[in-house]
Amino acid sequence: MNSAALTHRPESEDSFLYDPEHLRIRFHSAKGDLQKVTILYGDPYWTLPNADGDVVFQYDTADMVKTGVGETADHWTVTLTAPYRREQYLFLATDTAGNTTLVGDRGLRADTPANRLEMSNYFRVPFFQTVDMVQTPDWVKQTVWYQIFPERFANGDKSNDPAGTKPWQPEDHPGREDFYGGDLQGVLDHLDDLQKLGINGLYFCPVFTASSNHKYDTIDYLEIDPAFGDKALFAKLVHAAHERGMKIMLDAVFNHMGYESMQWQDVLQNGAESRFASWFHIHEFPVTPFRDPIKGEGEPQYDTFGFESHMPKLNTANPEVQDYLLSVAKYWIEEFDIDAWRLDVANEIDHHFWRKFYTAVTSVKPDFYVLGEVWHSSQPWLNGDEFSGVMNYAYTQLVMDHFLKHSQTATEMIDRLTDQLMLYRDQTNQVMLNMLDSHDTARLLTQAGDNLDLAVQTLAFVFMQTGAPCIYYGTEMGMDGGNDPDDRKPMDWTQLGGSTWQRIAALIQTRRDHAETLGKGITSFNITDDGLIRVDRIGEEHLVAYFNTTGAAVPLRAKALLEQGFADAQLAPNGFVIAQG
Amino acid sequence: MNSAALTHRPESEDSFLYDPEHLRIRFHSAKGDLQKVTILYGDPYWTLPNADGDVVFQYDTADMVKTGVGETADHWTVTLTAPYRREQYLFLATDTAGNTTLVGDRGLRADTPANRLEMSNYFRVPFFQTVDMVQTPDWVKQTVWYQIFPERFANGDKSNDPAGTKPWQPEDHPGREDFYGGDLQGVLDHLDDLQKLGINGLYFCPVFTASSNHKYDTIDYLEIDPAFGDKALFAKLVHAAHERGMKIMLDAVFNHMGYESMQWQDVLQNGAESRFASWFHIHEFPVTPFRDPIKGEGEPQYDTFGFESHMPKLNTANPEVQDYLLSVAKYWIEEFDIDAWRLDVANEIDHHFWRKFYTAVTSVKPDFYVLGEVWHSSQPWLNGDEFSGVMNYAYTQLVMDHFLKHSQTATEMIDRLTDQLMLYRDQTNQVMLNMLDSHDTARLLTQAGDNLDLAVQTLAFVFMQTGAPCIYYGTEMGMDGGNDPDDRKPMDWTQLGGSTWQRIAALIQTRRDHAETLGKGITSFNITDDGLIRVDRIGEEHLVAYFNTTGAAVPLRAKALLEQGFADAQLAPNGFVIAQG
Repeated sequence: MNSAALTHRPESEDSFLYDPEHLRIRFHSAKGDLQKVTILYGDPYWTLPNADGDVVFQYDTADMVKTGVGETADHWTVTLTAPYRREQYLFLATDTAGNTTLVGDRGLRADTPANRLEMSNYFRVPFFQTVDMVQTPDWVKQTVWYQIFPERFANGDKSNDPAGTKPWQPEDHPGREDFYGGDLQGVLDHLDDLQKLGINGLYFCPVFTASSNHKYDTIDYLEIDPAFGDKALFAKLVHAAHERGMKIMLDAVFNHMGYESMQWQDVLQNGAESRFASWFHIHEFPVTPFRDPIKGEGEPQYDTFGFESHMPKLNTANPEVQDYLLSVAKYWIEEFDIDAWRLDVANEIDHHFWRKFYTAVTSVKPDFYVLGEVWHSSQPWLNGDEFSGVMNYAYTQLVMDHFLKHSQTATEMIDRLTDQLMLYRDQTNQVMLNMLDSHDTARLLTQAGDNLDLAVQTLAFVFMQTGAPCIYYGTEMGMDGGNDPDDRKPMDWTQLGGSTWQRIAALIQTRRDHAETLGKGITSFNITDDGLIRVDRIGEEHLVAYFNTTGAAVPLRAKALLEQGFADAQLAPNGFVIAQG
Repeated sequence: MNSAALTHRPESEDSFLYDPEHLRIRFHSAKGDLQKVTILYGDPYWTLPNADGDVVFQYDTADMVKTGVGETADHWTVTLTAPYRREQYLFLATDTAGNTTLVGDRGLRADTPANRLEMSNYFRVPFFQTVDMVQTPDWVKQTVWYQIFPERFANGDKSNDPAGTKPWQPEDHPGREDFYGGDLQGVLDHLDDLQKLGINGLYFCPVFTASSNHKYDTIDYLEIDPAFGDKALFAKLVHAAHERGMKIMLDAVFNHMGYESMQWQDVLQNGAESRFASWFHIHEFPVTPFRDPIKGEGEPQYDTFGFESHMPKLNTANPEVQDYLLSVAKYWIEEFDIDAWRLDVANEIDHHFWRKFYTAVTSVKPDFYVLGEVWHSSQPWLNGDEFSGVMNYAYTQLVMDHFLKHSQTATEMIDRLTDQLMLYRDQTNQVMLNMLDSHDTARLLTQAGDNLDLAVQTLAFVFMQTGAPCIYYGTEMGMDGGNDPDDRKPMDWTQLGGSTWQRIAALIQTRRDHAETLGKGITSFNITDDGLIRVDRIGEEHLVAYFNTTGAAVPLRAKALLEQGFADAQLAPNGFVIAQG
């Protein structure tokens, strides 16, 4: 037995309440090593005299199910209940040769009756604490998000166009400093279009006053940028969206402030005497001209986002800064009823701040959604008191590595996706934001080498996953674009209702028609004998999907709910089928 | 290579700030599998053009050190700095056959130049957040604790003896309901004795009003039990202890209340109408007579500690209960200047409560020590915002399993101890409470089969460990006693200053003379060729200790700072030597 690979971490994603009554437990072993894992479990205080008169622990047993295969590990799962909301448990592993071992809190033991009763070697869930249970908003599990870059979505009000606004030409390659006049009135004007597309969640890039076109350099967190509209218009937009069953998510840039913010300008002007000096991480005055260490200019005078002198990092450990940012966070919920915050560069801000943030926003709106921008694995933020989920690049980039870049095989992809799912509790996986592109990446179609079938196939794969899918504006119009700023072209409204639009709408419709199962059902991956990727989702119904990434047509029998390239019992390359399982 | 056993968990005990400037990183591999682990690291934003003009990440490399061997794993460590307080890192593992693999955030990769530059596969410490760093009180690392069971330590005031108080006979076997008259005046009277023994931390079992002799059934958290004294006397005791450089730790029983508490009595009297009904977990009224499910009486009407009807569990998710308990916690710090709380049944109370508790007590006294009673592994509580440390039964019972019970070999013991140290950050290990016995277990001497040499040897082993050692009252008097209540005999003051007392005092003196190294130095274990257990502690000095658990004399050359059974270059069975390394 590969005993070094037998792992379980108590009270973590390996042992968590899925709901107040159900404890879900995971165990991991080396790939192919074990034939069976049995769990011994019971209430730690439930002891009775045995035949010898010794008072001993009374345990039940259950077989764990191998629910996934990862890159190097098999993953085993069981769900338990406990009448008195306390549980202790011990694993009995049996390898393919029949060797056994007990795996407990204090190590490995031979499977003997005495060792089965070694109370101190049991893992513990001391009490089913509902207050500590990770809860994620149910509505997110039903949501198909749509990301809007407001400056480029639609120009609904020419009166607020910035000076030098360029004509709205979707074929343009925007420059870094260009403006096209997109605004909130443009979004309001097209809400019906988005509803027709099937969207029920709008994720806005920043809308607060800032000087750039992307608005990530916030000047005033409490004002709508005048080029986008005003608060009255924003309130109207939220209301109109809510009337259509759409949720609203805004983007909060709390890691750093804009250079032109009143606070940073005050520091520039007053130096150490500025009442905002302690709002930032300043090592030396004066702070300008900024010394960029990458350019060999010496040590920087203050901390920044990356080495960007115009993005001074906020000191979120300062209670004044906390009060200010939390008041901002609550203001837009209390006054405008937004439903979610997306948090920019969320990983570089301290956990203490995010815990206060989570408490603040959920105290205003209990089912509020908090989405962190974290590109790497995110366990420290996803324990129920900081973020609900993160932008799931770590997951979707694995998908792209196979479908678009061919840098890993289908088997490697499903193994690694399975490992990703094992990093988090199930209720967390269900509210991750799964997007294939964004304002920070090249567009999906461009990454797919302008192969629309391939782009739609990849999107369909994401739509079959646990986690809420997100479309970047213009995907439904067949828009392309390279890396920033080329991914921020003005929306091509000429394609509204066209063939690409219809394919995307059908995909969204399928996701929403089966939202319960696709939102909360369990997930398993397989590669068929013919090399198709098979995804099973099992919830209130059983859905199965096949994706052909082999480069050749593959025979397949299925009754498709939705398909691409599927005819005459053959699935074409870049084709897919979604069917009842 | 055993790739399934290559493990690292970002931002955890595997990746933590040891101080604001130093990031300590651990990596784990199957025992004996790897010859080398190299870490690739650097600032994620530090990128420069390469020869091809591509802007790429610039990394440094360092070799990790194999700092421990566990039951199935080798443990590797490295400590890094980062000029801009950001770090990303990737592991390069090389096995004994020379095979290599990169181990990163998204899985395993071949060691190629391209894969070394795959930014998304790097683990991340996004920013060195001092506010999130786990900090533990330095004074605890210098402390030798002494646990007092007040009813049995010394009777300093006969005027407050409970009715039926028995004569103070150390040879007695106390019954469950007996009283012997011990009190706080008795402790005050003997403070000088404790100081002579070398003690600098007093850990009191509960002192608040309660009806039992052990006082774990609190009636009033805001009053000293009248049989122990009053608040003026307690204040005097704290003051006198502080004058002698001794810290004071009290015991808080917040999981449940006493049956006779005003709050529970109100529930008994007024049922669902009681204003305290929501203070407990009550499923049905009336709550009495209690139905004990173990006795087959059906479902209990309320949650309890274990199935003890007289210990109703508090609902610590109720803000009123929180306010009450936190006011208690702060009261004894603010008014009496205590230094630490020991938290009874701490694992069965929710994390939300403990976070509020930690914030409350450290806001009053920043270097306050919070000690949880948790008998199993305790990672969820030891992340810097709940407990400083726990009662380290999981560690010391492994010691006893070898030294006293012979149920595991020396090698098994040191492997498992090493694994225990890998569960927590170093600064946490340094403030664990290492005790071999307590009011909850049989006494050390009895567990050692009345072999005093063996008992002292085992204690000496614990004194050489990281973590603050704790003596249970009477150990220094050579007292014995079986399980509760036999472990709670009246103190045998006739042995004060006797031979056992002198041996224990010498051990304490050695610990305190070398407190800096024993408190914060690194630890490594080995078994010598002759079968001695060797413990190395390296800090400002290098200490080495040898323990003979082989049953036969073993040749040894050393210049002992402290020894037992060491003469003529021979270490006797049950002997030990502590020396300069």
